[in-house]
Amino acid sequence: MAQAQFQQETSPRGEFVRQPNRFTGRVTAKSTSAPGEGPDEQGRWPLESGRYRLIWSRACPWAHRAVIVRKLLGLEDAISLGTVDPIRDERGWRFSLDPGGRDPVLGIEFLAEAYLLTDPEYQGRVTVPVLVDTLTRQVVTNDYPQLTLDLSTEWTPLATKDPNLLPSELRPEMDRLMQDIYEDVNNGVYRCGFAVGQEAYDEAYSRLFSRLDQLEQRLSHQRYLFGDHVTEADVRLFTTLVRFDAVYHNHFKCNRNKLSEMPSLWRYARDLYSLPGFGDTVDFDQIKRHYYGTHAQINPGGIVPQGPDLSAWTS
Amino acid sequence: MAQAQFQQETSPRGEFVRQPNRFTGRVTAKSTSAPGEGPDEQGRWPLESGRYRLIWSRACPWAHRAVIVRKLLGLEDAISLGTVDPIRDERGWRFSLDPGGRDPVLGIEFLAEAYLLTDPEYQGRVTVPVLVDTLTRQVVTNDYPQLTLDLSTEWTPLATKDPNLLPSELRPEMDRLMQDIYEDVNNGVYRCGFAVGQEAYDEAYSRLFSRLDQLEQRLSHQRYLFGDHVTEADVRLFTTLVRFDAVYHNHFKCNRNKLSEMPSLWRYARDLYSLPGFGDTVDFDQIKRHYYGTHAQINPGGIVPQGPDLSAWTS
Repeated sequence: MAQAQFQQETSPRGEFVRQPNRFTGRVTAKSTSAPGEGPDEQGRWPLESGRYRLIWSRACPWAHRAVIVRKLLGLEDAISLGTVDPIRDERGWRFSLDPGGRDPVLGIEFLAEAYLLTDPEYQGRVTVPVLVDTLTRQVVTNDYPQLTLDLSTEWTPLATKDPNLLPSELRPEMDRLMQDIYEDVNNGVYRCGFAVGQEAYDEAYSRLFSRLDQLEQRLSHQRYLFGDHVTEADVRLFTTLVRFDAVYHNHFKCNRNKLSEMPSLWRYARDLYSLPGFGDTVDFDQIKRHYYGTHAQINPGGIVPQGPDLSAWTS
Repeated sequence: MAQAQFQQETSPRGEFVRQPNRFTGRVTAKSTSAPGEGPDEQGRWPLESGRYRLIWSRACPWAHRAVIVRKLLGLEDAISLGTVDPIRDERGWRFSLDPGGRDPVLGIEFLAEAYLLTDPEYQGRVTVPVLVDTLTRQVVTNDYPQLTLDLSTEWTPLATKDPNLLPSELRPEMDRLMQDIYEDVNNGVYRCGFAVGQEAYDEAYSRLFSRLDQLEQRLSHQRYLFGDHVTEADVRLFTTLVRFDAVYHNHFKCNRNKLSEMPSLWRYARDLYSLPGFGDTVDFDQIKRHYYGTHAQINPGGIVPQGPDLSAWTS
């Protein structure tokens, strides 16, 4: 099943082609819907504290983004958080970490239930992060790149902190850089790991390390990607970097070198790790168990490596 | 088939248990057989220059030992060398690197032919190194630990160099250390990679890195394992270390750290690499293609990682 799902996301040339995000609802104060109502005519859900529930896996870099941004913005009270088990079986993400194996708010055992309630025809891969409406149990969005942007820009009335993750004067350059990082790094590691065939892998590997070399250079003379101030671009790069040596280096064959062998990126990633919202939302155990335990097509035995020594992240 | 073969070498606890070496003939000047004759009543083949052919794969650490020792002893003219393809298909090691796909001396396409000619009932895994009698095409030995000892001690009349790889006063301690290195390191990396089950892997991993830590300590205050002089113990450790970052670190999940992260072992391995017989018999390309291309049970896609950067071996 996992194999079959990835076959749906493999090009004739053997490249991994990530499926589009099925649900693209947005929560915003601009909605004309009243509290408790569904989306308005333009598909905009009303902004309400406590109404929406963010579902993540601690393993998943896309979901990890949203959890970091939620914390940096002080939106923990406004958006509740549900956590799926790092091990995904053939029925997809499960709430087996919760008492009785059900999310205590949504009452479901499998995240797929929310997907199918929202779109009974849905046949794609069930992904996190996902924002669910707790009133109707419908999925609002699984569109992770838009979700974090909206947390910074549309959820402002409920945010208790103002970290300015998206400085408007930087947006054009940030959007370009985040797109490059997405293609070559965030998704690039998956394109290495899920490539079916040597050529597709080789191309993804080259693009990944060319981009990392470029970022290494950029970070050799500044603290963060856009100077002395953390932005959303840093959040997006961090969630891949923190998984790099723990899983991507081995499991996805991203092995020209370890992150710890690229001095500026390594300094940068550990700097971010030390900040509230970053390191305190990392769970290396779940990260490792998820990747090595879930992708039978690349690790059929399911054995989880004991290494690497991760103590350097905190020293 | 590869899977099935390894199942025969897996304990009920999921541990990899290497098969015994089937052929244990010895070539020695002590044989009472005349030149051209078979083994004497005690199974001893007569020592003759040019009669025996050593078959190796450049990928295989056990075979690599024999090739290094042969070179250090200056036995190249006395023992000819045949090389199998690094990619082993379901019929085992092949001579597909040779013109017409046949070993030019033995005239066979598959190494299994020599095994079956010698023992028609043989059903185990066909391994290298193997010493073959070119007169009868029978296998003399595939007992790799005895083979290299015999090259140093029984082949002396034909050796053109005297590197003293087995100083007699050191033998008891050497034998103990080589046994420990065999169990925890040489075969230990295979016990990590071929473990079926987490517990068997975890145990092999612990033993491997405990032993490497001990060796790291030992080599922090001396150049080689037994002081300033290269011995067979160094040859045996080298053939595993030189493959460590290239394959074992990723493919066999020996990933607490890379060899390059253990300063004394890394200095030591590169020192040996620079010596005639060591680095000049290493073929990283064939090593990588063999491991990643042959073990479908742990790398079903057969993709060969581009990394790691191996340039540091020669710098």
